[in-house]
Amino acid sequence: MRSVTDNLPGLHWHPDGYAALGGPLLQLATALDAVFVSWAADLGAQEERFPSFIALEDLKPLEYLRSFPQLATFALSLKQEDEVLSAFAQRHGAAEEITVEADWSAARQVLTPAACYHFYHRLADRRLERALYLTTCCTCHRREEHYEPLARQWCFQMRELVCIGDDDAVESFIGYCRERIEHLVDQLGLETRWEIATDPFFDPRHDTKALAQLLEPVKSELIFGDDLAIGSTNRHRSFFGECYGIRHGESPAVSACVAFGLERWLLAIVSTHGGNPDSWPAIAELVA
Amino acid sequence: MRSVTDNLPGLHWHPDGYAALGGPLLQLATALDAVFVSWAADLGAQEERFPSFIALEDLKPLEYLRSFPQLATFALSLKQEDEVLSAFAQRHGAAEEITVEADWSAARQVLTPAACYHFYHRLADRRLERALYLTTCCTCHRREEHYEPLARQWCFQMRELVCIGDDDAVESFIGYCRERIEHLVDQLGLETRWEIATDPFFDPRHDTKALAQLLEPVKSELIFGDDLAIGSTNRHRSFFGECYGIRHGESPAVSACVAFGLERWLLAIVSTHGGNPDSWPAIAELVA
Repeated sequence: MRSVTDNLPGLHWHPDGYAALGGPLLQLATALDAVFVSWAADLGAQEERFPSFIALEDLKPLEYLRSFPQLATFALSLKQEDEVLSAFAQRHGAAEEITVEADWSAARQVLTPAACYHFYHRLADRRLERALYLTTCCTCHRREEHYEPLARQWCFQMRELVCIGDDDAVESFIGYCRERIEHLVDQLGLETRWEIATDPFFDPRHDTKALAQLLEPVKSELIFGDDLAIGSTNRHRSFFGECYGIRHGESPAVSACVAFGLERWLLAIVSTHGGNPDSWPAIAELVA
Repeated sequence: MRSVTDNLPGLHWHPDGYAALGGPLLQLATALDAVFVSWAADLGAQEERFPSFIALEDLKPLEYLRSFPQLATFALSLKQEDEVLSAFAQRHGAAEEITVEADWSAARQVLTPAACYHFYHRLADRRLERALYLTTCCTCHRREEHYEPLARQWCFQMRELVCIGDDDAVESFIGYCRERIEHLVDQLGLETRWEIATDPFFDPRHDTKALAQLLEPVKSELIFGDDLAIGSTNRHRSFFGECYGIRHGESPAVSACVAFGLERWLLAIVSTHGGNPDSWPAIAELVA
């Protein structure tokens, strides 16, 4: 199925797991994202642009590194000391691979692993009077054993729509998004189905968050083809509300997010319609 | 001058050196970038979207780490071995700062330090028949001793326009961009001036590239206020052409780039017009 990426115009793949996009493929990604943004606008969502990093301090309440140590990518620099830098420049000035040593600074940041994490710590200890809708498109980073162009990348674009409020708001939000998604995949001619899923916890047997997901399914994935999850709806219940002390009225806030992996949508579209841009659906007309 | 960022709506600053943008400030950034994109379109430039990383292998011909070891930020993960990951999860599951140890993988990637670096290795060993115009907006990363909101950030947005061809093409390109830039700063009411500059080489006395820049000035910065460089024009002569074996006809290709630090433009605009979005210039009308 995926050999369609072999000579796809505008796709420049690096075997370490990431891609540059140009030409019609980038236009397709941009047009597709505009569809998701139009849904966000309908919901009155505020758009935000986040940095590459998220501070470990801000992820602390989630214990992210306990659940997903295998996925994390850290941002590290050298100690800013003349002798360190000068020795490093001499040894590694033209290196292709560098083994980490003691002259590196400590890690205080990971590269954003999921777009919506940026929102919750920002709202810490806030009390919301009404449901809040948020959206962002963020470059996300996940270390994996193997990568495949557009299907599984070390860095990729994730568009998320988020609702933080109470159960009613979250249920209507998920319902609204599912309806839009189903209409869109129809318009694009993509064959997909919904499946119950769990997040890729490192040690599910000993992770209370993993157990909670098994006991009461909260994640549905939109599957294209054999196993390509191109989107997901995630009911967090009051998990983030309690982790960060976000309240809705008198209760811990309830939240949900709907996430789209943009490169995977591109793959679903080119797998369905072929690698020739002339045969791709005219997405811009779907929004207008 | 810069206290205007203290309560700027839509700016969320992290003291480790990076910002999230929302609301009118994000709209301003988007509108401003659209101006630069319209110039790129005028030149027939192709747009590209790059990943967070650039491989050390692809930077090797530049000896980037010899010239700028102090600025580099590396992307690192843990060794993908069960014992390593499980010990790490136990020790650091909720850590705010982690000292680097031997169980980290080797570094093969830096976080993009300058947007246009992505273009040259792609064109390695190509022979161009006519000048090529390229553009991208890329999150760039530079480790510094101190950071200031919008003025000096660990990660920031850089829009670049690039020309690769011969001397004539490069000179017309720089001339076109300078004219547009000067007209734009006029329209925005920004007081700026051009200054000859050099890149922040780690050890300029022993770096042949630094010496070359001093002997024949190639970088001009557009300075706002005391010392805020909001843009620059950079004549690379045949430096990238020779490093990567890119030819224009029979000769090594000559290149130049024009770069804009988007957050710094925001700072120049709010420093000039104040922090209230109602008093900001209507940038969208400048393009239409």
